[in-house]
Amino acid sequence: MTGRWVGDHNLALLTDLYELTMAGAYFASGIGGEATFELSVRSLPPTRNFLVAAGIDDAVDSLQIMRFGPAEIAYLETLGRFDAGFLEYLASWRFDGEVWAIPEGTVCFGAEPLFGVTAPLIDAQIVETLLLNTIGFQTLVASKASRVQIAAGGRPFVDFGARRSHGADAALRAARAAYIGGASATSMVLAGAVFGIPVTGTMAHSYVMRHSSEMEAFLSFSRSYPDDAVLLIDTYDTVNGAGVAVAAARELAAEGIRVRAVRLDSGDLAALAAEVRAILDDAGLPRIEIFASGALDEHRVATLVAAGAPIDGFGVGTAMVVGADAPSLDIIYKMVHGPDGPVMKTSPGKVSLPGVHQVYRVSGADGWEGDIIALIEEADLPGVPLLAEVMTRGRRTVPAATAREARGRCAEGLAAMPAQLGDLDAAAAPPYPVDISGPLAALAARLSGETLDWRLDHRGNS
Amino acid sequence: MTGRWVGDHNLALLTDLYELTMAGAYFASGIGGEATFELSVRSLPPTRNFLVAAGIDDAVDSLQIMRFGPAEIAYLETLGRFDAGFLEYLASWRFDGEVWAIPEGTVCFGAEPLFGVTAPLIDAQIVETLLLNTIGFQTLVASKASRVQIAAGGRPFVDFGARRSHGADAALRAARAAYIGGASATSMVLAGAVFGIPVTGTMAHSYVMRHSSEMEAFLSFSRSYPDDAVLLIDTYDTVNGAGVAVAAARELAAEGIRVRAVRLDSGDLAALAAEVRAILDDAGLPRIEIFASGALDEHRVATLVAAGAPIDGFGVGTAMVVGADAPSLDIIYKMVHGPDGPVMKTSPGKVSLPGVHQVYRVSGADGWEGDIIALIEEADLPGVPLLAEVMTRGRRTVPAATAREARGRCAEGLAAMPAQLGDLDAAAAPPYPVDISGPLAALAARLSGETLDWRLDHRGNS
Repeated sequence: MTGRWVGDHNLALLTDLYELTMAGAYFASGIGGEATFELSVRSLPPTRNFLVAAGIDDAVDSLQIMRFGPAEIAYLETLGRFDAGFLEYLASWRFDGEVWAIPEGTVCFGAEPLFGVTAPLIDAQIVETLLLNTIGFQTLVASKASRVQIAAGGRPFVDFGARRSHGADAALRAARAAYIGGASATSMVLAGAVFGIPVTGTMAHSYVMRHSSEMEAFLSFSRSYPDDAVLLIDTYDTVNGAGVAVAAARELAAEGIRVRAVRLDSGDLAALAAEVRAILDDAGLPRIEIFASGALDEHRVATLVAAGAPIDGFGVGTAMVVGADAPSLDIIYKMVHGPDGPVMKTSPGKVSLPGVHQVYRVSGADGWEGDIIALIEEADLPGVPLLAEVMTRGRRTVPAATAREARGRCAEGLAAMPAQLGDLDAAAAPPYPVDISGPLAALAARLSGETLDWRLDHRGNS
Repeated sequence: MTGRWVGDHNLALLTDLYELTMAGAYFASGIGGEATFELSVRSLPPTRNFLVAAGIDDAVDSLQIMRFGPAEIAYLETLGRFDAGFLEYLASWRFDGEVWAIPEGTVCFGAEPLFGVTAPLIDAQIVETLLLNTIGFQTLVASKASRVQIAAGGRPFVDFGARRSHGADAALRAARAAYIGGASATSMVLAGAVFGIPVTGTMAHSYVMRHSSEMEAFLSFSRSYPDDAVLLIDTYDTVNGAGVAVAAARELAAEGIRVRAVRLDSGDLAALAAEVRAILDDAGLPRIEIFASGALDEHRVATLVAAGAPIDGFGVGTAMVVGADAPSLDIIYKMVHGPDGPVMKTSPGKVSLPGVHQVYRVSGADGWEGDIIALIEEADLPGVPLLAEVMTRGRRTVPAATAREARGRCAEGLAAMPAQLGDLDAAAAPPYPVDISGPLAALAARLSGETLDWRLDHRGNS
């Protein structure tokens, strides 16, 4: 087995062993038939009012290309658990199911199915780990980024998270998810190359330190990048650095080079931004913008904006790409319908909704009023259905959204959702109503033998 | 640009744009010379007493293979920032530096350099993002896993985190890091294939639900895997499920099949384990083990162990692989020595130690007494040096540690470190002493113009 990285060639092994042992048992016992599994976030993190779906298209792409190649089969054989017949089956396996999903960038809520798989039982089982992993991570980053977007109040913010994300691939996908959530650009070059996201960047403290003075560093950098000179002014002392930036800007102006911005990366950003703004304005340089970074998250950005700090843009990194307040989602993938009809799990605290579902979003004159989770066979429900078919027989039926399209959908959702969901303090906002339909409640009661105490609200406190 | 995944072919673009713009400015201005950068965790997370270094060998491997291929150069050209000369330089670039590093699996502390790069300035700069990303993530998971190892008190635990880790590659690397920290196995199949880590797994609730009864599911699964039947008994009701497992075990015994364990995945695990143990023992099945999982972390594992819960092994997932209490480390990569001598950053709260360093671990009769960060040129220091050369001129000089070797080193460290560091409540334990040498303190004072208020303790409260 070669290849340190997860790639198209070995994606099928991105799975928990039990997916394969169960598949092997199904294969051995001849239990077949189709089943439907649904993926959802069981309940929202306590710090969140809503989520932004992401990773949907990535998951669909993965389903389409997943194969067990010769190297993968050879490895599985070494485990000594799988008989030759099952391994032969896997060697020619490909995902052959139907997928319904919520579009990339959609604002969504706890308990709502985001991705549904109807497939031969083995197919639906094998892909569980991959789907949870892909959609869970990207959704958590897009969701976090959308909060930064709200906090920034129209000012641009840039993803700076690559260095603290959970590995190389996480950095790549986080950049895309952050862009969907509202970031205007990323510092992560590969994300620009792969996803066409705008990339941007300034300079590091080491660059300033490498020169004999800040002045020399600023001049040298600006001459190399005359169209995009952003000067980092906090390496030694921010206020002093602002003065140096002014001197550099004047010298550069004579060469026809305009300094675009200065960057603050430490200290009391609100106070320093005000001091630096005054220095720049007093020097007759009002067009030089101020860019701020350094351990920012949506709360710190909101505080800076509320304080009227003269900051024109933000760099947001670690907290956003690791989802610091919620670094995982309670994301689940449950069988909801087996070959013999709807099924339901009743483990304490882990009750699942039986049957195949659609989510309807009901709007009134003032915007969204609530979502209803209903059985797919119900007719004449109010609102707009959120899930749509994206795969049939293991093939895409609609093109993947571009990052830009998904970003647009997210922006529309943030604008249309009830305003109180934009409160960064989730506990302060009344929950968004997510209800279940009467027929669904009746089915759950019938299968569980009791009236379902399923309190669906925006925090999913079930 | 093809390839959705980060792989060997496009690894060089796993960088922040500013690494390349700075490199371009260095190239244009002809500023060269060698510099040394050091990577460290500025301070420990408040919930941690120590770290376990991981990702070191992965980082070295990446440095060795990083190249800007034609597709990467073509993309960079589209950005319109880089002139033809610099792009041509990048096209033939390869990392050409020396690396000193702490061995994979070493117990370490805040402020200590873990990885040092001495290289042409451009080389040292370009690799920053990659090094921080790789070592930061894997170190945080290995560190978290080592706490689970301590909590489990000798009972085995298995990495179940693949589905909630931050993407596919994170799942792969987290499995390895968790193994280094002490996990006995992983559920993540690809990690078994790539790193030779033991893989294991049981069954999911959906498997039970797919059968007409728990009994049928248990019998069918055990017949498929007669050597490794672990029965999941909480799909409907754990205590009732234990009774079903007993009945299944009796029927299977007649076929020569022995049920190895039952698994609990929800509810009050301590109480249920006691009930289930009694049911199994009363049925004359004392050899059937009890395996527990479900939202476990080191604290919950410790509570179960302290309560004497009859649990023989744990599955630990999400909290471990995302480092729930510390999903990022304050990891930094700073220039410490430029072509003209040692350098130092003095931004408030972000002071760096000047000069090239070695860390000495001083032991007494009772084990480790403290670490000393000293200048590399100092002689006759007490203790054992922790960093050793691993690359020269961009080539490995020592083989990478296997996951098993790194795991052994971690286990040795956990056994040798002061016992109080094993207190899961970091605030309750006195800090491990990490001091700086006199000459280093003097250098810092000389460069900063003031006496360094650098309080190095195990929490790195500087």
